[in-house]
Amino acid sequence: MLIVAERINSSRKAINEAIKAKDADFIRAEAKAQAEAGADYIDVNAGSFVGQEAEYLCWLVAVVQGATELPLCLDSPDPAAIATALEVVKGPVMLNSITLEKQRMAGMLPLVKKYRTKIVALCQSEEGMANTVNEKVNIAQQMVEALTKEGVALDDIYIDPLIYPIATDTQSAVAALGAISEIRQLFPGVHTICGLTNVSFGLPVRKLINRTFLVAAMAHGLDSAIIDPTDRELMANLVAAETILDRDKFCVGYITAYREGKLS
Amino acid sequence: MLIVAERINSSRKAINEAIKAKDADFIRAEAKAQAEAGADYIDVNAGSFVGQEAEYLCWLVAVVQGATELPLCLDSPDPAAIATALEVVKGPVMLNSITLEKQRMAGMLPLVKKYRTKIVALCQSEEGMANTVNEKVNIAQQMVEALTKEGVALDDIYIDPLIYPIATDTQSAVAALGAISEIRQLFPGVHTICGLTNVSFGLPVRKLINRTFLVAAMAHGLDSAIIDPTDRELMANLVAAETILDRDKFCVGYITAYREGKLS
Repeated sequence: MLIVAERINSSRKAINEAIKAKDADFIRAEAKAQAEAGADYIDVNAGSFVGQEAEYLCWLVAVVQGATELPLCLDSPDPAAIATALEVVKGPVMLNSITLEKQRMAGMLPLVKKYRTKIVALCQSEEGMANTVNEKVNIAQQMVEALTKEGVALDDIYIDPLIYPIATDTQSAVAALGAISEIRQLFPGVHTICGLTNVSFGLPVRKLINRTFLVAAMAHGLDSAIIDPTDRELMANLVAAETILDRDKFCVGYITAYREGKLS
Repeated sequence: MLIVAERINSSRKAINEAIKAKDADFIRAEAKAQAEAGADYIDVNAGSFVGQEAEYLCWLVAVVQGATELPLCLDSPDPAAIATALEVVKGPVMLNSITLEKQRMAGMLPLVKKYRTKIVALCQSEEGMANTVNEKVNIAQQMVEALTKEGVALDDIYIDPLIYPIATDTQSAVAALGAISEIRQLFPGVHTICGLTNVSFGLPVRKLINRTFLVAAMAHGLDSAIIDPTDRELMANLVAAETILDRDKFCVGYITAYREGKLS
């Protein structure tokens, strides 16, 4: 399972304040905690700072890359902010995200090609949210075609089916799960990725819904997730799901996690 | 989700001792606790008492039916013991279980027909355990044919793919999950059912594996389970999975469980 660690996001209050105060120690601690908890990529997002996003994003890149060797996931819908950050980032990188929207695709695709990045592709188009399996798969197909036509490797594409709150549409999780299955079957080699927090919006005990959805999504073939790896119960579920789904040879990952006290 | 409550089983030490001592209060308390925790059927098993199984099974039936209105699941591989218990049981009943083995099928099928019971059908044949998806589905198909040919309704058939420990075969859970999906697609109207405890045998923190497997199995279409409903974390996962999988209209079951303090 590829884990993109989501905590360094300016929509979170503590992060927002740390960025404003240029509190590098706080950001470094967040980066290290997520790395130690099992992150593969560290997501960095400064989207709350309109007009200063590129500047703050570059600051985050420098601070986080001073704290961990892990690659970064540059998180912005704005190609200009991403382009500026790409000039200072070191090593391999993932971009979060592209959609089928023309302007966003036109701005982001040249960067994906130039820097040979991995790319998160959201099932969203000019027409708005894709709610059904068919709508999601249809957008995924168009994005895969647009990306591969430009030479992007299948292995660099991470399709996010997008998950909406089940509290307002009880079919939304089933639609995302169905899309994950179909995308895997239709486009072998392409990855699927998902954030979790939307699914539980408006319901109590949100983390229970989030980690249950993660297991269901992994059972449908999800191989990457944008999550908080410092959430112990979530990670215990993830490790157990890997073992159940035969992605953990000889159960070594599970037994190691147990010995490190991560499962209780 | 149809929940068959598994605790009143003579293979469990406390139950075994209670049966031997004819401690009806203890058995009644177990039955009531499981009923209150959300059981739909109460499984009763006296299989450890070779030579006295029928006698003890009848005693369990009488005691449990004095404690709860819930229907029973008579749990024995021995048609003679089941036949004796069927004479004293009241109301609808589920039998656990039949296999493709000739003698067992020949002994059990007349009882299923005579008493119009629900029947758990294990994916097991004369040749032994079915390990792969194909083997499991093949046996399921033969059992569904044998049962329906004799007039058993599809809705009364509960196919158990059987799950073996992932510690000894890391593909065993994936095989069970694949079989659940295929059985649902091939035989609409037939139910799937599964016990959980085998899957985690030999691994630490077994309950984590069990509840993670339950969610994965539900995501593949499992609609019944033989479980311990007094396991709070397991039940919280089950309730959350129902909600995610759009089996909980308006999330009412989830919100009710939350208000009753069952999710924390």
